[in-house]
Amino acid sequence: MMSASPAFAVSLDDIRAAAGLLRGQVIRTPFLPAPRLSALTGAECFVKFENMQVTGAFKERGAFVKLSRLDPAARKAGVIAMSAGNHAQAVAYHAQRLGIPATIVMPVGTPFVKVENTARFGARVILDGTTLAESQNRVQQIIAEEGLVLVHPYDDPDVMAGQGTIALEMLEDQPDLDAVVIPMGGGGLIAGNAVAFHALRPDIAVIGVEVESYASFHNALKGESHPIGGPTLAEGIAVKNVGALTLPIIRALVAETMIVPESAVERAVDAFATHQRSMAEGAGASGLAALLHQPERFRGQRVGLVLCGGNIDARILASIMVRELERRERIISFRLTGEDRPGFLGRVATRLGELGANILEVTHRRTFLSVPAKGVSLDVTVETRDAAHAEDILRQLEAQGYIIRRIDANGAVLPGG
Amino acid sequence: MMSASPAFAVSLDDIRAAAGLLRGQVIRTPFLPAPRLSALTGAECFVKFENMQVTGAFKERGAFVKLSRLDPAARKAGVIAMSAGNHAQAVAYHAQRLGIPATIVMPVGTPFVKVENTARFGARVILDGTTLAESQNRVQQIIAEEGLVLVHPYDDPDVMAGQGTIALEMLEDQPDLDAVVIPMGGGGLIAGNAVAFHALRPDIAVIGVEVESYASFHNALKGESHPIGGPTLAEGIAVKNVGALTLPIIRALVAETMIVPESAVERAVDAFATHQRSMAEGAGASGLAALLHQPERFRGQRVGLVLCGGNIDARILASIMVRELERRERIISFRLTGEDRPGFLGRVATRLGELGANILEVTHRRTFLSVPAKGVSLDVTVETRDAAHAEDILRQLEAQGYIIRRIDANGAVLPGG
Repeated sequence: MMSASPAFAVSLDDIRAAAGLLRGQVIRTPFLPAPRLSALTGAECFVKFENMQVTGAFKERGAFVKLSRLDPAARKAGVIAMSAGNHAQAVAYHAQRLGIPATIVMPVGTPFVKVENTARFGARVILDGTTLAESQNRVQQIIAEEGLVLVHPYDDPDVMAGQGTIALEMLEDQPDLDAVVIPMGGGGLIAGNAVAFHALRPDIAVIGVEVESYASFHNALKGESHPIGGPTLAEGIAVKNVGALTLPIIRALVAETMIVPESAVERAVDAFATHQRSMAEGAGASGLAALLHQPERFRGQRVGLVLCGGNIDARILASIMVRELERRERIISFRLTGEDRPGFLGRVATRLGELGANILEVTHRRTFLSVPAKGVSLDVTVETRDAAHAEDILRQLEAQGYIIRRIDANGAVLPGG
Repeated sequence: MMSASPAFAVSLDDIRAAAGLLRGQVIRTPFLPAPRLSALTGAECFVKFENMQVTGAFKERGAFVKLSRLDPAARKAGVIAMSAGNHAQAVAYHAQRLGIPATIVMPVGTPFVKVENTARFGARVILDGTTLAESQNRVQQIIAEEGLVLVHPYDDPDVMAGQGTIALEMLEDQPDLDAVVIPMGGGGLIAGNAVAFHALRPDIAVIGVEVESYASFHNALKGESHPIGGPTLAEGIAVKNVGALTLPIIRALVAETMIVPESAVERAVDAFATHQRSMAEGAGASGLAALLHQPERFRGQRVGLVLCGGNIDARILASIMVRELERRERIISFRLTGEDRPGFLGRVATRLGELGANILEVTHRRTFLSVPAKGVSLDVTVETRDAAHAEDILRQLEAQGYIIRRIDANGAVLPGG
């Protein structure tokens, strides 16, 4: 591995200077042991809670450093950024704090909540472009017309230096680490942190993580050809093009990268909520996803995870958590068919109570074509103690003469018991 | 106000000794500024994140202090506690860490997840009693038979001293406070903290909060006669009987108490999730609920909130967050009735798109008795930008000849537009 050279866009000194600028301007987030994640993964986990920043993500660090270094003319003209996510909120929030006019361009069709989250910080939000290229054209046009300064989400030395201050805080709180696992989108977060770790503690492995549908760095670094695109829970790292400034740093200083499947990201989001009572968006949970996906790589090691963002929709989070309970058969759904005699629902409900099943939902219908003329069907969702208990409940109901068919997570009624 | 006297069950020295015992045994939780809660309440808010303890609540502090001081004979015999909540998990977890056998008695019908959360720490969980008195009888019976040591959830000097260490950490991180707002259940948390604040910083107002359906301390301290009982989101502070040891401390040192309505607790839970990306159970959010309920009391002051617990069911949290969006008319539901011509659903959906409404749910039915023979009804749920946008969408649909009736949060179809 080569050592950090002046050819890189950012140095340890730059990061130290950024840390000085950031003092008192962003939250000094905690870096805490997470024994329950350790029990889950087999590694000794520590979590850097960057989701506790005011706008819910680490992006404020880079944005503040960039904004605070603008000269008076640029401050007066204002800044522009293109983002529907955490970078938009970070630029809008700190621009407002510093009295700098901010313009944020988002694609048409951006959910209202994201527009609102940015507009409430006083930014001018422009919805334009259905593709990234179209939005970028609009940004260039506004810059040409109004002389605004672009705040790039990652490919900027000030931004990278700001993100790199996370490493300094992690080492201050817990210097005894074997590895840190850091999400990679455009690469600004990992580039800044890799420079700091490499300069101060080259013995700590810096590991980059991409989600399977956006393995852009794997393609760029290793000449692989993963297809790029499509929906992902980890939208914060769903970046098609790697940074021109971040790529050489990552090539030189990040010896190890991983790709995590969507399912591991989902499990990691659930684990942060269930075990840490902390909301992680997909990108924020992708470091933990790497540990869940390849536990043998990390077993017994002391691993620092950067929970880099927590902006996840409440309904999506709830459905992920319920899905995890379904996966463990702590929640099961089934269609129960029986003879249509008075008191049917009462008998079934009483029996379920005796079997120790907590009823969550019941739909009572007579209209299915599959129900015999004199039959009646219930779609039932119950909470169970565990998979064995679930199995026992279904067998006991069958033993009583009911026809049982499982309903899967997509609502499809499966053939047989 | 009288000064702390030896008559109290716990002193500042006890709390300092407890802090020494706790070092490295529980998480040193962060106490952080919360600018978005400040914007919401008008007070300058700081949050002590006790929900970041391993079992999700402050109860570990008191439980560890109590357990670590048991003599060898008691350690061998083991401990017993009665709780279905955070105290159960705290005792089970630290008993396991210390190699002390633990028995936890919970009422029959306790949700599986609570049983599992305790049993996974190796505790013997006994489900017995349908009332508190019955469970207590069982605890007494087991103590008589097996010689176990009771770990009381609040009425114990070691437990109170442990909880009081929160005050020391708050003052260490942010000494410049005007007030601290602390939830009151049995009173262990506030008693310990009131002793510490009174001894070290008597100028900081210590304010106790109860939820309206369990205002036991208001009854005991002021001779009021609030009815006690019923379901509440703040189950962690739903305590019918105040502590014999906690009451005199609270009477002497807590000059101000407040009662918060259930609706404020719900809003506070939503605010912690939405603005802090942190999961708070009802009891844990009740301090913030006091600020939301009586903002004038705190306006402009520097207020410390103890987010004392984060163990909330994911589905309950999600429904609270969705309900808050409904309250702000960011989500609205309505029944739309029109003439049954081909392409009806397509026309309505297209029009909603043009009006900028994001469709979340549609149910298409022809079976309502209220629908004219040739009419068809849709139940529609859409996301809007805000209440004014919602109103505009409905007026535009009416102008087009559709009959519109709002559906309320309980699913009732309201008369008229």
